[in-house]
Amino acid sequence: MAKELKDLTKRSENYSQWYNDLVVKADLAEQSAVRGCMVIKPYGYAIWEKMQQELDRMFKETGHQNAYFPLLIPKSFLSREADHVEGFAKECAVVTHYRLKNAEDGSGVVVDPAARLEEELIIRPTSETIIWNTYRNWIHSYRDLPILINQWANVMRWEMRTRMFLRTAEFLWQEGHTAHATEQEAWEEARRMLDIYAEFAEKYMAVPVIKGVKSANERFAGAIETLCIEAMMQDGKALQAGTSHFLGQNFAKAFDVTYVNKNNQPEYVWATSWGVSTRLMGALIMTHSDDNGLVLPPHLAPIQVVIVPIYKNDDQKSVIADAVAPIVKELRAMGVSVKFDDADNKRPGFKFADYELKGVPVRLAIGARDIENGTVEVMRRDTLEKHETSLEGIAQYCKDLLEDIQNNIFKKALDHRASLTRTVDTYEEFKEEIEKGGFILAHWDGTTETEEKIKEETKATIRCIPFEGDKTPGVCMVTGKPSAQRVIFARNY
Amino acid sequence: MAKELKDLTKRSENYSQWYNDLVVKADLAEQSAVRGCMVIKPYGYAIWEKMQQELDRMFKETGHQNAYFPLLIPKSFLSREADHVEGFAKECAVVTHYRLKNAEDGSGVVVDPAARLEEELIIRPTSETIIWNTYRNWIHSYRDLPILINQWANVMRWEMRTRMFLRTAEFLWQEGHTAHATEQEAWEEARRMLDIYAEFAEKYMAVPVIKGVKSANERFAGAIETLCIEAMMQDGKALQAGTSHFLGQNFAKAFDVTYVNKNNQPEYVWATSWGVSTRLMGALIMTHSDDNGLVLPPHLAPIQVVIVPIYKNDDQKSVIADAVAPIVKELRAMGVSVKFDDADNKRPGFKFADYELKGVPVRLAIGARDIENGTVEVMRRDTLEKHETSLEGIAQYCKDLLEDIQNNIFKKALDHRASLTRTVDTYEEFKEEIEKGGFILAHWDGTTETEEKIKEETKATIRCIPFEGDKTPGVCMVTGKPSAQRVIFARNY
Repeated sequence: MAKELKDLTKRSENYSQWYNDLVVKADLAEQSAVRGCMVIKPYGYAIWEKMQQELDRMFKETGHQNAYFPLLIPKSFLSREADHVEGFAKECAVVTHYRLKNAEDGSGVVVDPAARLEEELIIRPTSETIIWNTYRNWIHSYRDLPILINQWANVMRWEMRTRMFLRTAEFLWQEGHTAHATEQEAWEEARRMLDIYAEFAEKYMAVPVIKGVKSANERFAGAIETLCIEAMMQDGKALQAGTSHFLGQNFAKAFDVTYVNKNNQPEYVWATSWGVSTRLMGALIMTHSDDNGLVLPPHLAPIQVVIVPIYKNDDQKSVIADAVAPIVKELRAMGVSVKFDDADNKRPGFKFADYELKGVPVRLAIGARDIENGTVEVMRRDTLEKHETSLEGIAQYCKDLLEDIQNNIFKKALDHRASLTRTVDTYEEFKEEIEKGGFILAHWDGTTETEEKIKEETKATIRCIPFEGDKTPGVCMVTGKPSAQRVIFARNY
Repeated sequence: MAKELKDLTKRSENYSQWYNDLVVKADLAEQSAVRGCMVIKPYGYAIWEKMQQELDRMFKETGHQNAYFPLLIPKSFLSREADHVEGFAKECAVVTHYRLKNAEDGSGVVVDPAARLEEELIIRPTSETIIWNTYRNWIHSYRDLPILINQWANVMRWEMRTRMFLRTAEFLWQEGHTAHATEQEAWEEARRMLDIYAEFAEKYMAVPVIKGVKSANERFAGAIETLCIEAMMQDGKALQAGTSHFLGQNFAKAFDVTYVNKNNQPEYVWATSWGVSTRLMGALIMTHSDDNGLVLPPHLAPIQVVIVPIYKNDDQKSVIADAVAPIVKELRAMGVSVKFDDADNKRPGFKFADYELKGVPVRLAIGARDIENGTVEVMRRDTLEKHETSLEGIAQYCKDLLEDIQNNIFKKALDHRASLTRTVDTYEEFKEEIEKGGFILAHWDGTTETEEKIKEETKATIRCIPFEGDKTPGVCMVTGKPSAQRVIFARNY
């Protein structure tokens, strides 16, 4: 067994350490020399690229276009929207100078005090302000609407506690920013994008999510309502996987963006914004992986099938290579990403452990005897089950198996979530149950005070007011006041 | 004729103004509220995305992988390589604080002096330093080499004079950073990537380029040698379209990156870096476009064929739509990007002018009479020639025409370059000729002094010492000292 694999902490011992180990050992990312910023390594980035491709396609199919807005935002822009500045000013990177100069003592370079900016610039924590300042010049009439734009970009939030992928100072994301003539259209857009996120999470990441709306406390700074998808990790903690904001006319008013409607009257423009980030990588890792390493959903795995030849000499190697070549070709023609790893400098056992660690969904091992018998050994990463099958039709077999794995890990995650989702009616019971992890469905009186009391006493927050499920009214488990429906409580990442 | 089109400055009147007008009017980009930073609008970004796709494919086909490194670089990293800091410290954005706070007078937010960073961070102007600091931990043995990594990112250089796409404070680019065991391998890599850039420029952008090496004066700060591709714009000025640097062991030494070779001896690692940026958009625009607007090479045009129906009533519109549907389908099946613009709110004349402005390579106009006659009007954007052809086989006809346009605009640019490339032998002649624009092939003694004298007196720089062409030695046109070969002089962007 490879050394890297042996060193992986077990989930049961320390889930948090297992995650950190896995991110590093599976070559996904590592800490950089800059506090809170990570290096995304090629294997991690390849998974992110697959996510990007699918999301980008889904955005374009729903009429969105990509564009690019500046990294830096004038400090004064932040203050235009009262909640927005409150939410972001306290953790932003501030550019104050535009030049360094040689230190007089020859010790390197220092900030040149003569090159101080008149107005400081902040590195975007999100781009509503710079984008709505731009939209003012783009929007005049109802004919200019809607504007459906997305941006793939890096953003920065000076978080104090960081964890790779889950919470980093700099992260990669996409941010959609749309402008609409009517409130209804904007609402429909916010909801449409939430549905796209949910579809992506479930169909590609194989991560089941609950769609809902955030409480005021958890709302995006500057939004009227924040919609979200919430996922449950293996340790029972919740992870917010994506948000879609109905911004109302807040940013239009802050940046004076009006349009002339069909009745020739000026009106403020309605807005949405929505985003998912490299945080999704964290969700992907923590939903499916095990003590042997990553388990990747086939729809996002950079390598879907790996073929490892088992040979004792060059003759055998050559016989196997000849037999494998048409299989590789057939798999590629089917759109399956396949790697034939015939490197001589690593033993099969090392390769097996390494591909397990990296989460490759299907592994074929094939020796000279297999060729003679027309067989091949198949290992599926999700269950680690091995079996022998016929070489004939192996490409189609792999393709079907990949779909089976995709469905299986989704179902496993769904079952896990169901097993850790409970309904409680009293606060006493809630306090007991929350210690066991998972989602708790409970009644809440709708006030921030009660939500904060619960958070203080139990570390649980309201993950969302779910759109689907039981809508029966009741009474708040804490105050006994009326509650419109049960909401989802959990501890969260 | 559409208003936007009429307002476009003519090249003969003011080439520079024509360029600025065109960038804005064709909806490619606009200035932002942040000095020197632009907004890349959806149409401009769509062209950049096509460039990215092709380049990314070419990089991956040659064994490179993408990764992502931090935006911010500790100030001290810059100083590690003496030439590098000299080249970049004087124009960089410096992050000094990580928090804003409410101003005491209620006037918004101000920098919080309590949140000053211990060490300032600079926004990457290029990533050699942060990447080589990372590579130190990745490279131990010759088995870890080569490392072939590329990054798609934004970078920032605080340029004093900016022009959209050509020179902006923030720009988008890719930067390759490779690590090798031997000098020869690193040289081969630097040269391979230069060839890829040249192939991309010529086959996709239809921009002919000259490959060569930079003089010491124009070398990348920290490189041993800088290779480049140089293009000629319509006004005869040169534009550096891409660079590939042989970095020797400079960064390995600066960041102490060694490996153990096959003989078990430690050695410093050899490096290259190479990049192209959104500057290519400027080259694309200035090489092909005309007084009617953009001319886009078909291989990079977001819309390759536009079909405009000409109708007087809904019946005609419907007949045309029925006839066009299978053509659209057939074109798409051929991989041709096609738009059928049947919007009612714009007249055909407006649409024609708009698609000319946007550089759509092929326009089909089709009326009810055409359907009866089985004909269609074809306009090719490069020559603005219109003619009638048969509707039968129109999809294949368009596909062939696109290739013809691609070849034609390349040839046109090549002929233009040839017509503005001259050989001179005396400095007097040189001073006369340089005023007329274009490339001047002349002998130079190889010294920085002479190069700088020429630059001061004529504003011309050495664009490159070309790899191909006449290699006959001679004497420097200024000093009479020996010259190994003619070099290319030009004024440049």
